[in-house]
Amino acid sequence: MEDQRTPRPREAGIAIGRLPTGPHNAITDVPGVRVGHATVWRDEPDPPAGRGVARTGVTAIVPADPATLVAEPVPAGTAVLNGAGELTGSVQIAEWGLIETPVYLTSTMQVGRVYDAACDLAVRDDPTVGDEAVVIPIVGECDDSWLNDARRGQVEARDVAAALDGATDGPVAEGAVGAGTGMVLYEWKGGIGTASRRVEELDATVGVLLLANFGSGRDLRIDGVPIGETLVSGIPYGDPAGSCLGVVATDAPLDTAQLRRLAQRVGLGLARTGSVAHHGSGEIFVAFSTGSRVRRERGQTHQTRTTVRDERLDPLFAAVVEAAEEAVVNALWAAPDVTGRLGRTVPGLPHAPAIELLRAAGRLSGGSATG
Amino acid sequence: MEDQRTPRPREAGIAIGRLPTGPHNAITDVPGVRVGHATVWRDEPDPPAGRGVARTGVTAIVPADPATLVAEPVPAGTAVLNGAGELTGSVQIAEWGLIETPVYLTSTMQVGRVYDAACDLAVRDDPTVGDEAVVIPIVGECDDSWLNDARRGQVEARDVAAALDGATDGPVAEGAVGAGTGMVLYEWKGGIGTASRRVEELDATVGVLLLANFGSGRDLRIDGVPIGETLVSGIPYGDPAGSCLGVVATDAPLDTAQLRRLAQRVGLGLARTGSVAHHGSGEIFVAFSTGSRVRRERGQTHQTRTTVRDERLDPLFAAVVEAAEEAVVNALWAAPDVTGRLGRTVPGLPHAPAIELLRAAGRLSGGSATG
Amino acid sequence: MEDQRTPRPREAGIAIGRLPTGPHNAITDVPGVRVGHATVWRDEPDPPAGRGVARTGVTAIVPADPATLVAEPVPAGTAVLNGAGELTGSVQIAEWGLIETPVYLTSTMQVGRVYDAACDLAVRDDPTVGDEAVVIPIVGECDDSWLNDARRGQVEARDVAAALDGATDGPVAEGAVGAGTGMVLYEWKGGIGTASRRVEELDATVGVLLLANFGSGRDLRIDGVPIGETLVSGIPYGDPAGSCLGVVATDAPLDTAQLRRLAQRVGLGLARTGSVAHHGSGEIFVAFSTGSRVRRERGQTHQTRTTVRDERLDPLFAAVVEAAEEAVVNALWAAPDVTGRLGRTVPGLPHAPAIELLRAAGRLSGGSATG
Amino acid sequence: MEDQRTPRPREAGIAIGRLPTGPHNAITDVPGVRVGHATVWRDEPDPPAGRGVARTGVTAIVPADPATLVAEPVPAGTAVLNGAGELTGSVQIAEWGLIETPVYLTSTMQVGRVYDAACDLAVRDDPTVGDEAVVIPIVGECDDSWLNDARRGQVEARDVAAALDGATDGPVAEGAVGAGTGMVLYEWKGGIGTASRRVEELDATVGVLLLANFGSGRDLRIDGVPIGETLVSGIPYGDPAGSCLGVVATDAPLDTAQLRRLAQRVGLGLARTGSVAHHGSGEIFVAFSTGSRVRRERGQTHQTRTTVRDERLDPLFAAVVEAAEEAVVNALWAAPDVTGRLGRTVPGLPHAPAIELLRAAGRLSGGSATG
Repeated sequence: MEDQRTPRPREAGIAIGRLPTGPHNAITDVPGVRVGHATVWRDEPDPPAGRGVARTGVTAIVPADPATLVAEPVPAGTAVLNGAGELTGSVQIAEWGLIETPVYLTSTMQVGRVYDAACDLAVRDDPTVGDEAVVIPIVGECDDSWLNDARRGQVEARDVAAALDGATDGPVAEGAVGAGTGMVLYEWKGGIGTASRRVEELDATVGVLLLANFGSGRDLRIDGVPIGETLVSGIPYGDPAGSCLGVVATDAPLDTAQLRRLAQRVGLGLARTGSVAHHGSGEIFVAFSTGSRVRRERGQTHQTRTTVRDERLDPLFAAVVEAAEEAVVNALWAAPDVTGRLGRTVPGLPHAPAIELLRAAGRLSGGSATG
Repeated sequence: MEDQRTPRPREAGIAIGRLPTGPHNAITDVPGVRVGHATVWRDEPDPPAGRGVARTGVTAIVPADPATLVAEPVPAGTAVLNGAGELTGSVQIAEWGLIETPVYLTSTMQVGRVYDAACDLAVRDDPTVGDEAVVIPIVGECDDSWLNDARRGQVEARDVAAALDGATDGPVAEGAVGAGTGMVLYEWKGGIGTASRRVEELDATVGVLLLANFGSGRDLRIDGVPIGETLVSGIPYGDPAGSCLGVVATDAPLDTAQLRRLAQRVGLGLARTGSVAHHGSGEIFVAFSTGSRVRRERGQTHQTRTTVRDERLDPLFAAVVEAAEEAVVNALWAAPDVTGRLGRTVPGLPHAPAIELLRAAGRLSGGSATG
Repeated sequence: MEDQRTPRPREAGIAIGRLPTGPHNAITDVPGVRVGHATVWRDEPDPPAGRGVARTGVTAIVPADPATLVAEPVPAGTAVLNGAGELTGSVQIAEWGLIETPVYLTSTMQVGRVYDAACDLAVRDDPTVGDEAVVIPIVGECDDSWLNDARRGQVEARDVAAALDGATDGPVAEGAVGAGTGMVLYEWKGGIGTASRRVEELDATVGVLLLANFGSGRDLRIDGVPIGETLVSGIPYGDPAGSCLGVVATDAPLDTAQLRRLAQRVGLGLARTGSVAHHGSGEIFVAFSTGSRVRRERGQTHQTRTTVRDERLDPLFAAVVEAAEEAVVNALWAAPDVTGRLGRTVPGLPHAPAIELLRAAGRLSGGSATG
Repeated sequence: MEDQRTPRPREAGIAIGRLPTGPHNAITDVPGVRVGHATVWRDEPDPPAGRGVARTGVTAIVPADPATLVAEPVPAGTAVLNGAGELTGSVQIAEWGLIETPVYLTSTMQVGRVYDAACDLAVRDDPTVGDEAVVIPIVGECDDSWLNDARRGQVEARDVAAALDGATDGPVAEGAVGAGTGMVLYEWKGGIGTASRRVEELDATVGVLLLANFGSGRDLRIDGVPIGETLVSGIPYGDPAGSCLGVVATDAPLDTAQLRRLAQRVGLGLARTGSVAHHGSGEIFVAFSTGSRVRRERGQTHQTRTTVRDERLDPLFAAVVEAAEEAVVNALWAAPDVTGRLGRTVPGLPHAPAIELLRAAGRLSGGSATG
């Protein structure tokens, strides 16, 4: 398992967008939101002697105490830019506008086992689950089969538990970690990236976390500068298909119709980095609000909820676009070279020449700490 | 495990709709389509001594030889009447308009393990899967937790394999079988129901298979006759929530836009039996065509396909509505009394008084063999 | 112009559904909602000597004082069962979840002139319109070209104003009136139908108004009884295409996501009368709530709103299904024989034989006043 | 009425994207597609003395001979990025996947009169319309009420006819012309912009035409260079709301599901210029294919159609993104200063400083002719 590279782009002077970041420039800047990773990295012979090469994992985004999520779910909405992928729970979010479990990310053909483990964890954390009510976990995926041996189950229930139980607030590990371990981004090593924005006029934070696994190398732009016209990874990665699962969190109180609209803006951030949303790509986004949960009360007929007025959503939209754009760059910047199955290596984006291209285009600031 | 009751409603003189049925009045009347069930029926002590009471299972609807489904997928479309449920693969069907695995039905909290087993079976049946391409299996669910102990995994990978490998054409077992084992329908025992219709002017067959688990008892209508005003099961089943997963198959050559429209009509059939699509219900439908598969050919830029003209779809729409309505009745008619967890019993709909009500309303014909 | 026939079906003993009606069994039972019709009935020579035969008109459903609708819009949601039709404003309702003008219904090729007149009326009633904000009126349509000469503009701006300004609460004229003047329903004369239901546990009323112009005659069912198997109009009406625009109003406080779900249930009511949602039909529905309007306040960032809990929606869903089913029957029952262009006559459904069929099936009650 | 400014950006050295343009770098590069404008420019006293200040108009995009569009419609699909706007016909395109009239663009509150005139023109061009079939014209809008007096009808039926009958292939007038006359884009004068791309491997052309009326000035980017950080128009244009109606044409044979996906990519091009899709904005897109029309034949049950394989769509997606991005820049570049109602002036984007910013960022090529 390789380490995350430092510093982060913003510390290197790449300042995407106009809004201020939260203290960690991460989805965990939204109060109460935690992130946990379980990385599965294995070099064994092929079966039956072993389980082959694993470059995969699980990432859990935890909106609130899991024990409370069924009794007091989190409002949510989804959007799909190109739907060649899976986000379980999508149908229910479209109808009910809420999520009742953490959001899990993993490799495509591991969705079933993560879903299954998520059910067990939901029962563990709330014993009414499966008795008084069933739950449909939220599990998203990207395809890591270029580096990872996806034909066999590589993720175990204990990995899912480790991602959930190890979830913390504060800084979030990025790049080749958790679900991002085997992902490829603009033909460079990709994976997990996150960023956040403050919207002061609403006293709210917006965070985005991406599982980033998409794009043609030549299309890559960083802060508008066409890096990909010059820098080439050269990997023989024929198919630009890939995917990008995006999770948006905010403490601004929003309803499901508004959250769908926030989710919709993730794609605009991806577009700015060069995405055209390839046919084979699953650009699927889910947004949730920790600021407008409503406790289920069987005895009550009505509920009262305070939400942001629609006319005031524009800064939240801008925050999503900026954070999504920056999260792509953060994923690229963090991920090191990774060698996986069949001896394939995907290099990390080289920092120095990228910095030079940005400097030449006048897009490099002095560098700054986040916050 | 209880037996299916006979005869079927049509043999008892209940003739829903105007179009002729196929030879088995089942989804398997569509050439090439097969159905298999694995029923999980277990009476053990609670953990750790045992696995509790299982009244659940898996049903596989197989559109064509599974080994061919990735190379030559089946066009498909979905529709949602009320989305409090899950059909994995929905996002991809909306984008690509096709399915690449059999359709599996099961209990809500078993979706993960069925998905996982379905991946293994896809690799088994087509070794390119997971290497050159990944697949997203199609798994739908209803909640059987009133009779079944849903808190623990009751379905195993071998059950999924048994459902797939045991799939056959010809008559389809209905009622408390496979995924239908623990389902409740209009407060009577429900589960699997199927029916078919011939559309002679297109030389085509339409089949519908339902996993039927919905409805308030007092709302039940059979062929328009308000059975539920008179017949009451009396079970203390407080919440009318439930679900109805519906699968439509046809050999009429249709594209994804047309198949979405067929899927949309399943809800009209349910409505005729008394459904108002409760808040807690997952009425989710998928339709596929075996008559317009297109082989993926990497070297080709274009494809040529023959489909039914849109202006000629009406008889197919009528066929879906009729078959869906009849499939509800078939499920009710087949399912016997079933006792499950906590000693709860759900009775099968009593045939004799229902027949009397239909006769009094003038809705009973002489009775006839299908076909 | 022909008169509406009496009595209404409920007074004749046809009691559809279980919930009580409002005092007028009409959409106007929702407090504040008003309906107005302008009927255009003209027998002139073809141009240039005259304007041909007009059997058409405009119906306005007014949710609240039009002068307040831009400053304090009405939450709304739409659903489409089959989209071969038009409801202007649909895109904006999907995004903003509200309507800012009355809902107008008319003939397909008159949508433009009704839209145009509706803009003028919006400016008349609120002088800020067009200056500080523009509006997108809500105009729905069905095709009346079998009886009406649709090739030429038959509706004038003054007709739109007359429908709006003549809108009243209390009883609503049904059948061949307003937008319903030229419509055909199950091959009988159709047009406007309305019904309402009380949901006492929420102290709320649900009203439905239909512009009903759809269906194959042989499919017609009234309260489950297959009238159309016996009663045949015999008109040479080749194409079963048609449409059904449905408007749902309620004073239950609901948000846009909930209103979309109410709109979705109109189709279930149509299904019970025999609809399979033909290819050529525009079954398009819009639901609005007068109970949860929110005043636009530029200075405010947040809003507080009380709505019905999702878990309590089921009786509202049932109310929509019942009222939609009854509104179809009410439209059929009210509309007399109408002769239109080319000497074509569409007969009104004969009451006596229909009553006999219902009586024989045991579906006729003593007859009762509404309320 | 002001003139269009020259040269176009590509001639000035601004070369957006990688794919070659068609001969005119316009939607009319798609064979058979024509564009016509009618500009309404009027300086009269307020009513009753005159009709006030008009800065508005109509633009017609004509996919093929209008007389053939009902008998042989054009496959189409739509997508909505933010739906605060109107595109009539959207519901029908979603269901039937085709359009039967030219696409008209105009000012928001003129949609009704354009729709009405479009009906008359449809009858004029195909006398079966309104007799054997009715049509629903496709009319899109943006709000030009900052410069144009939108409270009163400014567009007449003769303007619609002039736009349609004056439609030509070859170069397309851009900027403050036709429907674009009063539009504002990133706080500079905007309006009509168009561009095209060649996809040689499919021997196909993709053209995009925008009615561009959106964006916050400070967000503007041209080819990734943040022009808006430096260049400020300074107009007191409080609300960044606006809209962008986008029309995509291609001769690649595509079906409705594929065309919806092309339409979806227009938003990615807008994002690259700085759009976050404001709450008040109607980013609504329609794509059609001239290469896969199917003649309606009542006697036929099936049809055969050749389309591009889904796996080959990526270059078409890239073409849409590039052409949409360039069309925004083309609209800005063409539009001169325009003074409208209340003496308000919106300046055209100054070319020289923009060129300097692009040069400093290394994004200026030598300049080249299109084609």
